[in-house]
Amino acid sequence: MKRRDVLKSGLVLAGTTALAAPAIAQSAPTIRWRLTSSFPKSLETIYGGGEFFADRVSKLTDGKFNIRVFAAGDLMPAFSALDGVQQGTVEMCHTASYYYVGKDFTMGFGTALPFGLTTRQQNAWMYHAGGIDTMNAFFKDYGVIAYPAGNTGAQMGGWFRNPVNTMADFKGLKMRIPGLGGQVMARIGAVPQALPGGDIYPALERGAIDATEWVGPYDDEKLGFYKIAKNYYYPGWWEPCSMYHVMINIQKWETLPKQYQEAVISACRETNLDMVAEYDAKNRLALVRLKAAGVQLHKFSDEIMEGSYKAATEMYEAEAAKNAKFKAIYEGWKTFRAEEAQWFALSESAIDQFYSAKLKT
Amino acid sequence: MKRRDVLKSGLVLAGTTALAAPAIAQSAPTIRWRLTSSFPKSLETIYGGGEFFADRVSKLTDGKFNIRVFAAGDLMPAFSALDGVQQGTVEMCHTASYYYVGKDFTMGFGTALPFGLTTRQQNAWMYHAGGIDTMNAFFKDYGVIAYPAGNTGAQMGGWFRNPVNTMADFKGLKMRIPGLGGQVMARIGAVPQALPGGDIYPALERGAIDATEWVGPYDDEKLGFYKIAKNYYYPGWWEPCSMYHVMINIQKWETLPKQYQEAVISACRETNLDMVAEYDAKNRLALVRLKAAGVQLHKFSDEIMEGSYKAATEMYEAEAAKNAKFKAIYEGWKTFRAEEAQWFALSESAIDQFYSAKLKT
Repeated sequence: MKRRDVLKSGLVLAGTTALAAPAIAQSAPTIRWRLTSSFPKSLETIYGGGEFFADRVSKLTDGKFNIRVFAAGDLMPAFSALDGVQQGTVEMCHTASYYYVGKDFTMGFGTALPFGLTTRQQNAWMYHAGGIDTMNAFFKDYGVIAYPAGNTGAQMGGWFRNPVNTMADFKGLKMRIPGLGGQVMARIGAVPQALPGGDIYPALERGAIDATEWVGPYDDEKLGFYKIAKNYYYPGWWEPCSMYHVMINIQKWETLPKQYQEAVISACRETNLDMVAEYDAKNRLALVRLKAAGVQLHKFSDEIMEGSYKAATEMYEAEAAKNAKFKAIYEGWKTFRAEEAQWFALSESAIDQFYSAKLKT
Repeated sequence: MKRRDVLKSGLVLAGTTALAAPAIAQSAPTIRWRLTSSFPKSLETIYGGGEFFADRVSKLTDGKFNIRVFAAGDLMPAFSALDGVQQGTVEMCHTASYYYVGKDFTMGFGTALPFGLTTRQQNAWMYHAGGIDTMNAFFKDYGVIAYPAGNTGAQMGGWFRNPVNTMADFKGLKMRIPGLGGQVMARIGAVPQALPGGDIYPALERGAIDATEWVGPYDDEKLGFYKIAKNYYYPGWWEPCSMYHVMINIQKWETLPKQYQEAVISACRETNLDMVAEYDAKNRLALVRLKAAGVQLHKFSDEIMEGSYKAATEMYEAEAAKNAKFKAIYEGWKTFRAEEAQWFALSESAIDQFYSAKLKT
């Protein structure tokens, strides 16, 4: 799939100088760009966010700013999206910044951190507590400017062959859980594995893994884990939300007429709103079906939540001690998280709890 | 303030025929419209949603589609906004559909119903369970087309001079609570009053009312209720979310170039996302300040929640028995609400609960 060498920018505009002058902006040029998604079409709601974004940009520009969306693997591998944009192979990508924590742990703030912000808290941080500017100052070193563009909501805690009740139950437990969640799992004694989606079911079936997480009811149902491992846990503390971004090559961004930049900004906000609404609509129905299929829902025990929280916090403190970029964001983020926790503890949480007991399907 | 007779449409386009032809759409005409807000500037976050919306439309159209925003009372009273748009006095308004439950109870579905949907559930219903089309089929009889454009999140349960623990404590309780929440309060024996914002503090101070609700920590703090009534209750079961709409005169809407319609749709979605993010950022800090000022936070007792839920349900059943439009939406909405309740009972709620106990400010 390594076609990036032969695939160059689809920008129709000549040159790369900024086109800020009103006369040119008003000319509304026809532009063709390419967006590489980090997601396969099988994750239709997340991948679909990229399509939704491109469609909104097209509609906002009377069809003149065309963005063609490529699924993961079509132009480049899923996790090469940021590199592809930085190098200018494509103009933009739809991706999760936490895929790049190997470059810098700070990337986690853009998507999800274990025991991090929930969807609305993440939005409040991004849009009204300086998050977007903070992250773009950081992303600048990677040659991109980025805007939030989608969220799954809080993910589920995954599927376990056998119930887990204590921290001891995680010792040696082989679980498919990549990224930072996997790093915390390793700290509490589990053996995290980073299998791609298509490899999980067979691994679970033959006993190569004892447990797996994926996304939430809708996406999990499609992969069929419930047929093998009936114990479905919550909450997915490693992903209290999962926010995606559209990332744009900064030099290419600066060639866009101002009106087209605004279309991108609007379309990103729309995608950010729409994806979680779609997930909330789909997950509610998938949950009804999974319960009917005999899935056993379990809340992680206090011991597991406390132990995992402690391990995650130790991971952050260790990172802050050696990573100035991470530390600079982490300190304020911790305070923000605690303040939001106390706000959400009130009205929203009390409503959810009452409804949980009262409104049965 | 009744200047509507002398104020006519600001539409610069001649005529009212649909301008769907690409040649005309591409001409990107300069248009000036007026939006009347149902909100005073003192409710800066909600009123500001109208300004944010107009700014986004302007930016998306290279400054050519200008919408001037008027605060409640400037052109017409707050609750005349829908009439003003229907009559064509202004092209659009930013309002809460539940202000018009006097016209039809069905209006409540657009904003909030007691024990109704929370913010994300309302978004899921609107964007991915047919809500927007359902409501626009209903709104059509009022000559408007409407899109969600803002939300406060779950509101608080209000300020009480003395604690309330049982249903008996509501007998004869004089509370400022307008709308459907007030109707439920009347059913449980309270005496609801519909005072405008500026009249509440003096009424509370002189003992004319025993309790009041308003919005949430940020807006409530500004009105100073905490100086008189220290008991701050949650959840505001009468407003588990409060969604606002931009409503547009249908005939005027049909004169807009398609691209400008798309700009309106985008700007509405953006406003819907941004307002609650702003509230979540502001409420978190206001809550810290209110706690420091000695405010006592109380969760409504199970007895009060159960009794109020029963009264609200009786109100809906009575309405459904006599209002076919309401009934047609209510039946599916009830199922949707129960399914969403069970979905939010899991991961989101478990995260909120853990954070509530663990992350202290």
